[in-house]
Amino acid sequence: MGMTSQYDVLAIGNAIVDVISAAEPAFLDTHGIAKGTMRLISAAEGEALYAAMGPGREVSGGSAANTVAGMATLGAKPAFIGRVADDQLGQVFRHDIVSAGVHYATPPSPTGDPTGRCLILVTPDGDRTMNTYLGACQQLSEADIDPDLVAASGILYLEGYLWDPPTPRAAMEKAIAMARGQGRKIAFTLSDVFCVEGHRADFLRLLAGPVDLMFANENEACALYRTDDLAVAMEAMAAQDCISVITRSEKGAVVLAGGERHVVPAARVDRVVDTTGAGDLFAGGFMAAMVQGRSLPDCARAGCIAAAEIIGHYGARPEADLKALIGSELG
Amino acid sequence: MGMTSQYDVLAIGNAIVDVISAAEPAFLDTHGIAKGTMRLISAAEGEALYAAMGPGREVSGGSAANTVAGMATLGAKPAFIGRVADDQLGQVFRHDIVSAGVHYATPPSPTGDPTGRCLILVTPDGDRTMNTYLGACQQLSEADIDPDLVAASGILYLEGYLWDPPTPRAAMEKAIAMARGQGRKIAFTLSDVFCVEGHRADFLRLLAGPVDLMFANENEACALYRTDDLAVAMEAMAAQDCISVITRSEKGAVVLAGGERHVVPAARVDRVVDTTGAGDLFAGGFMAAMVQGRSLPDCARAGCIAAAEIIGHYGARPEADLKALIGSELG
Repeated sequence: MGMTSQYDVLAIGNAIVDVISAAEPAFLDTHGIAKGTMRLISAAEGEALYAAMGPGREVSGGSAANTVAGMATLGAKPAFIGRVADDQLGQVFRHDIVSAGVHYATPPSPTGDPTGRCLILVTPDGDRTMNTYLGACQQLSEADIDPDLVAASGILYLEGYLWDPPTPRAAMEKAIAMARGQGRKIAFTLSDVFCVEGHRADFLRLLAGPVDLMFANENEACALYRTDDLAVAMEAMAAQDCISVITRSEKGAVVLAGGERHVVPAARVDRVVDTTGAGDLFAGGFMAAMVQGRSLPDCARAGCIAAAEIIGHYGARPEADLKALIGSELG
Repeated sequence: MGMTSQYDVLAIGNAIVDVISAAEPAFLDTHGIAKGTMRLISAAEGEALYAAMGPGREVSGGSAANTVAGMATLGAKPAFIGRVADDQLGQVFRHDIVSAGVHYATPPSPTGDPTGRCLILVTPDGDRTMNTYLGACQQLSEADIDPDLVAASGILYLEGYLWDPPTPRAAMEKAIAMARGQGRKIAFTLSDVFCVEGHRADFLRLLAGPVDLMFANENEACALYRTDDLAVAMEAMAAQDCISVITRSEKGAVVLAGGERHVVPAARVDRVVDTTGAGDLFAGGFMAAMVQGRSLPDCARAGCIAAAEIIGHYGARPEADLKALIGSELG
């Protein structure tokens, strides 16, 4: 795919800095936060929760941004579109994605809300509970979608998270139309059950139409088809005219494509520290292998290895040499 | 010491957020940075270096701030004085130290330079090379030294790093006079060879006079007495009327006190990730044990355990339960 394109992937997503803190499950109960989920919070809710949280560490995040940062580490050429504000956290986000090797030229919002952040509470089991203040992310608009950049990128990758705020949603619809017009591939991640529940009709329409490659975890897949039975959801997915990839945590991943079904086991993890970004890095490993022309099972294996690396430490940006990890496994 | 005081320790130090990034030794060579040292950089130098560095993670730092954050984790009651600006990194510093359990009431500078930061390059051997932009730290002034807080704290703890900028130096001199007037103990860390070389006469005067407890590593001890022979430096220290603690990395620590000499081995470290903060946490473990009334060798052992925890991960704020680690060793 990437051969005739300047960039292998153009991702559009939330431009967020994660604030990661260890927390006991009781803390989540006290604050009425459902463990393992993502929820959107206001600036005031964010300030109150931050004041109650323990000491943190800040690592750049954002789902699609994590995916393309991982892809750059793996030697792919990605680009990213997303909005930060003109503030210190915005500088941190920009530095981290650019220095990872991702093309990123969206200008910061000169006024308005500060850079978005995600307050992530990591429980001792490694599960992450995310409280996201979108801030400047919501100001991403159609004007930020550069037609030349869409045309110059083999795959357009979109995160379901960004479907929630209306202005970025319109920007993504525009990007989809542009990519289709240029004959580019379109990849999409369902992101979270709350996104699926809020935008189910849109997501079904996208899958039936422009989307070529879809990422979902088990819960998101079931929510999309309103079933508790993963087999039912997978059957519905397999009937779509796209490649569907279902991630299953420690059970690995399943790829459904034109009647084919590939089941790949999870990669070994010595210690689960923080599962934040596991799905993001799975998608990054998968697509980086795909643009190298690898087989679908090998793409899924690369995804599993990248996901395993990210859950062994705090933060959703790779620390180890992913290229070496995947190379030693797949050759 | 802490029994009649509201706070066990009042630390005065740089209020800094660390920006930590993995780097190869060749990167240091290219940029003409001496490995393993700390140097002060301007805003422009900081911007150029940040642009050249790889992706980072942000963790609150500052030498004395790390020390008191560690002490709070160990159940001591510390307070901290240091200047941030009214910006996002200042909010991060404040959140992290307050949520760790440290009393911190220095107001942010409303104007002027942004919050200080330290660009830390961690090489694969775990060694850290620090490039510090002091920013708002330099605006700490005598007006920030609350006489009631000095009087309410059993130990006044000062970092040599802060001796470099003139306004904070005057503030520390004032704090020393106040603490002496109130009969409080004074502890001091030499911080870095460049501090010792720049302020040797002052440091010798402090050790001969008001300082009751001094922390130094081997290089700093040798620089203080202008010798290459640690035995010579230790002999000179032993002649001072204070407790001297010399940290020796993997060789442990030595405590010199009124003719006594205690040699304590280093604690076991499975993997050296990032040595940033090892000295800071040693001092924190040592003083936390001291305010509990433990023996000098046990204070040094507690220091070694706290230092071992901090070098096993990125960042200079504790991640593991230090209290449990030290409790299981010392009882």
